[in-house]
Amino acid sequence: MGTEFLKIKECDEAIDIIQNLFNEYLKPQSEEIPVTEAYGRILFEDVYSRMDFPPFDKALKDGFAIIAEDSFGASEESPNTLDVIDFLEAGSTTDKKVEKGKCIEISTGAAMPEGSESVVMVEYAEKFDDKVNLLTTATPGQDVAKKGSDIEEGNLILKKGDFLNPGKIGVLLSQGFETIEVYKKPSVGVVSSGNEITLQGHDLPYGKIYDVNGGMIKNDAISCGADAHFLGVMKDDYDEVKEKITKSLEEIDILLCSGGTSAGLGDVLKHVLDELGEVYIHGISVQPGKPTIVGVIEGKIIIGLPGNPVSALMIFNAFVAEPLTKLAGIEKDFELKTVKGVMTRRIHSPVGRMQYQLVKVDGENVNPIFKDSGAIFSLSSADGYVKVPKSVELLDEGEQVEVYLFN
Amino acid sequence: MGTEFLKIKECDEAIDIIQNLFNEYLKPQSEEIPVTEAYGRILFEDVYSRMDFPPFDKALKDGFAIIAEDSFGASEESPNTLDVIDFLEAGSTTDKKVEKGKCIEISTGAAMPEGSESVVMVEYAEKFDDKVNLLTTATPGQDVAKKGSDIEEGNLILKKGDFLNPGKIGVLLSQGFETIEVYKKPSVGVVSSGNEITLQGHDLPYGKIYDVNGGMIKNDAISCGADAHFLGVMKDDYDEVKEKITKSLEEIDILLCSGGTSAGLGDVLKHVLDELGEVYIHGISVQPGKPTIVGVIEGKIIIGLPGNPVSALMIFNAFVAEPLTKLAGIEKDFELKTVKGVMTRRIHSPVGRMQYQLVKVDGENVNPIFKDSGAIFSLSSADGYVKVPKSVELLDEGEQVEVYLFN
Repeated sequence: MGTEFLKIKECDEAIDIIQNLFNEYLKPQSEEIPVTEAYGRILFEDVYSRMDFPPFDKALKDGFAIIAEDSFGASEESPNTLDVIDFLEAGSTTDKKVEKGKCIEISTGAAMPEGSESVVMVEYAEKFDDKVNLLTTATPGQDVAKKGSDIEEGNLILKKGDFLNPGKIGVLLSQGFETIEVYKKPSVGVVSSGNEITLQGHDLPYGKIYDVNGGMIKNDAISCGADAHFLGVMKDDYDEVKEKITKSLEEIDILLCSGGTSAGLGDVLKHVLDELGEVYIHGISVQPGKPTIVGVIEGKIIIGLPGNPVSALMIFNAFVAEPLTKLAGIEKDFELKTVKGVMTRRIHSPVGRMQYQLVKVDGENVNPIFKDSGAIFSLSSADGYVKVPKSVELLDEGEQVEVYLFN
Repeated sequence: MGTEFLKIKECDEAIDIIQNLFNEYLKPQSEEIPVTEAYGRILFEDVYSRMDFPPFDKALKDGFAIIAEDSFGASEESPNTLDVIDFLEAGSTTDKKVEKGKCIEISTGAAMPEGSESVVMVEYAEKFDDKVNLLTTATPGQDVAKKGSDIEEGNLILKKGDFLNPGKIGVLLSQGFETIEVYKKPSVGVVSSGNEITLQGHDLPYGKIYDVNGGMIKNDAISCGADAHFLGVMKDDYDEVKEKITKSLEEIDILLCSGGTSAGLGDVLKHVLDELGEVYIHGISVQPGKPTIVGVIEGKIIIGLPGNPVSALMIFNAFVAEPLTKLAGIEKDFELKTVKGVMTRRIHSPVGRMQYQLVKVDGENVNPIFKDSGAIFSLSSADGYVKVPKSVELLDEGEQVEVYLFN
């Protein structure tokens, strides 16, 4: 027992190392998906318009497609009378042509027939037999959306990195896009370790506890835009850890392990990483969560989180969530996940280590949650955490703080 | 042509009517899902703890489980020596009992052996042969989490309506929950209508346009927590609309239709609703989006949205999103989807109708997007809309406004 932490890093240093490993080894990838299934996905390409929109001169109102001049001077008292030579519904076309003294009755959304330039709304027209009385003057182009007036072919309409909300999906559909390239969800595996770990659905023998980290960290990775899978439980045994890691890395790009206890897995994982790849971080100077380990095996990233669920969640959020979210393409909004507030109680912090303090946010109020780090139920109410730098001994009541929100 | 709007409603009235129809006809339903798949779902039940947590007195450190009194007076200069009678890993148990003068070596997370009451950390102990020198005094209960100290059996741990984030999922897993009751996603169908509507993947004949509303409104419904499906395109024809609606209602609870043109579908849909059920709203006094229709057929809600995509998106967000989101159980956070800001330009508004003005939000700045309501590309940049009440003729530059954000 007792672990030698040869590669202990300060928090900021650890954040940089992990981000750099992600940058070096895990390039964002794309996949093609149907536009109609794209809600919440992130565009992987700049998108240019394929065609003018509207694709034709389009009637904006129900009425009569005319040559504007034919309406000049018309009023309720002195209407101008035109021959109605056809009727055009939206989606229909006609061979007939609008010439002086003639018009075509038209529905909203229909293509303006050849020769016509304006629509006189049905409210300002009286139809009788094959004729119509225009009761108002129309300007050229009135109630017509010109071909390409909304967007012309070849324009940049959406950008790489755009979050596909319903409106942007609508824009893509209007241009006839059936599929689109989006960021592929990073492939994440989660493994729990520890001899005391029991899966839900089984009886809990004395001395054992149910696995929390497998399902919790999996879902936290999903909240960061990953395609995450729980890959099961392993014992803190060299051969078992080695086999599990080797097998898992065939399927996924990022492996998140968490030890059942704070000591056990760290040691074994370090030796396996040393043998199969390289260890970059072994210990972070942070409270809670010191026994964090980060390594690379054949271009895949392995992160050993603390076994304690509260510590595991904090370390995941503080060190893994941001690079993972960026890899998923969700760069733009990441910075928004903090809120400012005021501490409602004083908290003490150990000097010499960064401390992450769980808090509950209530409007402006930031309430520290005082429970030892093993207290899983603090997660029922925790909204996030505040950082207490290693040089700071206490955060006083009333102090302004920034809260890093959990997903 | 020309539609009689017999049941035109003011905006607030329409909002109330639609919410009341949802309340009356569509009760929230639940489904049981695996806890590990629950990210983002909403709890449908209060959840009580099934067992004490920790489920046993648990060692919080690696060290030696002792009777506290055996350490009294111990120091580096004058250690107390005890017999080490066993070693306990996390997850293991022992038949041996700690008695005066004896102790058991123990790992973090292991159940405290019978008779022991405190842990002396390994850092304050020197082991040799089958003995250990304690170098410090431990208080009773030191570095032990008592059974039930985190939570006792039978306590309320999560509430109906809670959003299942990773932390709350962790809490459920710690209690051994394998499955959980969550709000079932409301079942929504989306149908587009109009003779000019063409599906993506097909050539676009002159005079036709690609369907936008089907995929866009489907995804907007998904963003509100619904299980939404695009059910295809129908022509604005009485028999076809009647058949499509009748068939769709076998599968779903809420049907969102949108007309290819503003006039066509409204008329047909009204007649079908009159025959098969009841019309509650036929026209809302709002710009854009007047030709909105709301009816009920055999307890299912049918909403006819405007055909124009910008109008359809606005009407969906202003009138359907909130009751749909509430039906999905996402009640708590719904109010948060507005931001305050300052108009960067003046906008004029027709008196006598509520106006929804598309805007782009840039920090504090609220920029109105000036395009006619047919301009689909305004949706590339729109973040939401501001409401201009019917009695207000203009919103001036510099005026404080509230922006309703799109999903």
